[in-house]
Amino acid sequence: MTDYMPPFTSTVDLQSCTITNVATTLSRRLADMRGLYADAQAEAALAASNPLIYEVHYAANIPEEAGQLSYCTTVLYPGKVGDEYFMTKGHYHAKGDRAEVYYGLQGEGCLLLQTPEGEVNFQVMKPGVAAYVPPYWGHRTMNVGAVNFVFLAVFPADAGYDYKTIADEGFASIVVERDGKPAVIANPRRAKK
Amino acid sequence: MTDYMPPFTSTVDLQSCTITNVATTLSRRLADMRGLYADAQAEAALAASNPLIYEVHYAANIPEEAGQLSYCTTVLYPGKVGDEYFMTKGHYHAKGDRAEVYYGLQGEGCLLLQTPEGEVNFQVMKPGVAAYVPPYWGHRTMNVGAVNFVFLAVFPADAGYDYKTIADEGFASIVVERDGKPAVIANPRRAKK
Repeated sequence: MTDYMPPFTSTVDLQSCTITNVATTLSRRLADMRGLYADAQAEAALAASNPLIYEVHYAANIPEEAGQLSYCTTVLYPGKVGDEYFMTKGHYHAKGDRAEVYYGLQGEGCLLLQTPEGEVNFQVMKPGVAAYVPPYWGHRTMNVGAVNFVFLAVFPADAGYDYKTIADEGFASIVVERDGKPAVIANPRRAKK
Repeated sequence: MTDYMPPFTSTVDLQSCTITNVATTLSRRLADMRGLYADAQAEAALAASNPLIYEVHYAANIPEEAGQLSYCTTVLYPGKVGDEYFMTKGHYHAKGDRAEVYYGLQGEGCLLLQTPEGEVNFQVMKPGVAAYVPPYWGHRTMNVGAVNFVFLAVFPADAGYDYKTIADEGFASIVVERDGKPAVIANPRRAKK
């Protein structure tokens, strides 16, 4: 054993909502999320402008191996599709027993979680809040404020992604604005199981 | 599979340097670190006051299982033993291949790392800096500023601790104040391998 991976740092810049030492940036516009928002008409009305919904900046090149931890910052831009807040696609981990830790850095967000059987849980995120995504819970975040919502995420590097279950079935609940505040309601587009 | 661990949040309070939803707090005074500081005379001179060096607040009760992630905040108080900055005991992970992510929240700190063969690495930490402790590296932090140094740590819950190697051999280097700034020098108390 002589080849050790060198330690390193990445610095979060809350002005640009990025980090230094980024290996990959993932950008999602509305067109990348076709069918995930509940209001198809509102989605169609925004198709021409195709707004940028969120970006994820992954730090360095962490090997996707057991024991390693990947980390990234996510910036969710403020906005809504109809009355549904801008959100991430959401996913389960391919290795279902892998947990994740989020840490709120800027703005106001929510974390929506659900079990494979469709039990839903909802957590409020803001700067200073560390949220725990336990094993097996699918997870999606949304920006429920007026400014960028930024958070740090740390997860086992071998967790992997299962986006398909969410894309096929949707979340059981969605988060919409009601009287100026976030409300969790049943997803009208949720596929029956 | 019907018993899922419920999601939760813990909130960091940078006034009290604690988090909510704490399961365990670990406090280390000088007497708990006997022999780890290089200057035995300076250590003896502080024995009567036995200052509080650092506290670690572990969030919730995360099962120590593969896939789960433990997280905690550490507050290192400002001070020195002789010219050596207040520091944590430092440890390797019992499961050596487990990494760790640190995120600086307040104050100025340093992260000192070393391989089992004694190769040393040094990273500067401050608010907004995410530091990566790769697999196999022993790690210790120190407060090199005038106020509390606080950081968040996330690590695989099954990583475990090996404090003994550090207690027996010491770190190859120590971090001392030279001309008002941190300097990394060879540890005069380091056991010969």
